[in-house]
Amino acid sequence: MTRTPVVLGLDFGGTKIAAAVCDLQGRRLGATTVESLAGAGAAAALARSLAAARELLTDVAPQGELVAVGAATLGIPYDDRVELAPTFPGWGELPFGQSVKDAFPGVPVRLGNDVKAAATAELRWGALLGCDPGIYLNLGTGLATAIVAGGTVITGAHGASGEIGYNLRTTADVGIAEVERTILEEVVSGQALEATGTDRLGQPVTAAEVFALAATRPDAAALTTEFVRELALHVVNLAIAIDPARIVVAGGMVRSWDRIEPELRRALDAAVPYPPELTTARFPSDAPLVGALALGVQAAGADLGEEAFA
Amino acid sequence: MTRTPVVLGLDFGGTKIAAAVCDLQGRRLGATTVESLAGAGAAAALARSLAAARELLTDVAPQGELVAVGAATLGIPYDDRVELAPTFPGWGELPFGQSVKDAFPGVPVRLGNDVKAAATAELRWGALLGCDPGIYLNLGTGLATAIVAGGTVITGAHGASGEIGYNLRTTADVGIAEVERTILEEVVSGQALEATGTDRLGQPVTAAEVFALAATRPDAAALTTEFVRELALHVVNLAIAIDPARIVVAGGMVRSWDRIEPELRRALDAAVPYPPELTTARFPSDAPLVGALALGVQAAGADLGEEAFA
Repeated sequence: MTRTPVVLGLDFGGTKIAAAVCDLQGRRLGATTVESLAGAGAAAALARSLAAARELLTDVAPQGELVAVGAATLGIPYDDRVELAPTFPGWGELPFGQSVKDAFPGVPVRLGNDVKAAATAELRWGALLGCDPGIYLNLGTGLATAIVAGGTVITGAHGASGEIGYNLRTTADVGIAEVERTILEEVVSGQALEATGTDRLGQPVTAAEVFALAATRPDAAALTTEFVRELALHVVNLAIAIDPARIVVAGGMVRSWDRIEPELRRALDAAVPYPPELTTARFPSDAPLVGALALGVQAAGADLGEEAFA
Repeated sequence: MTRTPVVLGLDFGGTKIAAAVCDLQGRRLGATTVESLAGAGAAAALARSLAAARELLTDVAPQGELVAVGAATLGIPYDDRVELAPTFPGWGELPFGQSVKDAFPGVPVRLGNDVKAAATAELRWGALLGCDPGIYLNLGTGLATAIVAGGTVITGAHGASGEIGYNLRTTADVGIAEVERTILEEVVSGQALEATGTDRLGQPVTAAEVFALAATRPDAAALTTEFVRELALHVVNLAIAIDPARIVVAGGMVRSWDRIEPELRRALDAAVPYPPELTTARFPSDAPLVGALALGVQAAGADLGEEAFA
């Protein structure tokens, strides 16, 4: 009996870690999610998610043969570390690639940045199809973008392009070391809004709850107005630099899109010489996972058609 | 007798207009420059420069046959207009491409943006060779950049990528119409520094003179410090977005490079996760003209080797 070749995709985010299994045509056989529980430690999160992935494989493809793994993570992954992953304490020091390889001995593993993997998925199968250039904007636990041009995602000279979470906020930040200034992501991200909201609204709130409260509470509305305005400053300037046909937005904060979109749209229209389209992603909540599956299929030496992940 | 095929390159800038003639191997036969004299009107500047170009052709290639023209300009050129050219009053309304074509009947003409043409020249023959990605930063009469990735200059969906002169300066600018806000170029450009310097130092000064005076006069030093700091804010954030291997600087303000470079270097080192190299261009004062010649050679259907423009 021939065993069906299957691919595992893993997406390690600051809030949740997702795993999915697909065949070499990109048909999803199943998926699961575990909480990152950053407080319990990065190593525990990695171990728990690899265990969940193995369980998923047993559940959805008991007769399948795992032929490759694609693993996407926040930051820039290497076998022995993850660079630029400050929103997840301890994640940077993990032997990320090696741990994934050790969990699935003998299986080819391809690593990638989550936002770039997501942008690749949107470029190939989703809302960035045909956009040249285009911008993928991740509004999740953290803040990052990916820039698409010439039919591909710009990697950067060190794999770090699009990492606008590190942006300077004002001229007062110029020349100040990163550890001594507040980087953009510490103010404009889901994690940041949750922290500020909890602090300023006198109750524990998620970012989505701050946006919901803004409909009735002036203090919450002031927070979200300030938040979207600062987000818009950086998205507008990036759009001026790139002149994209479209900006595609994804990540956990997309659930508050109706409260973010009007102001962002207005900011783009007012300032960008040729205002781009602005839409949510085709895979708003799991584009990085789709991208991870695609990395896995690539690692297996297969090629997915236009109809994959339909 | 066979006439030598020659190509004309034209670079229309806000301060000067340059013309050069080369052969199909990229050997320069001669060049000339006329002042733009923006005050005398855009149409006059265009007519005067086309006359100077014809004269140049007669002088340096009396036996030559003009086989193509490459014309680079600030803004985005079309046959009947130039978009995004606010620093040169009236330039936008000129039938730019048509005028060049009418001046050289029957000769193929290729149009291009000056900064993107310059970046292409630096990518092919100069300081951006092998940089992927890379940034070309024009500090001239105006302010603009070109982004290089995948071995080419990113054009943008509307030809406007890199036009950071339109950037928002602070969150207070978000949502404000362009005509009602001060765009970055109105504060950070050679033209802007000349105007501010003349206003604040109580004497007519060029941008280079403001930088020179900064060595001895505190009021001039305050101006240049503020100027470089705001320039750095935007260059740093663009470098974070692109993760370039190198930033290559050109334009008229390069003559004050020793006063700009240290602060810009320090700002990049402090803020960009992987700080890029920072150098002046190989063709610091005439990369757009070299790019225009290259456009012309392309229009002639020829291809230049690595040794062109040596």
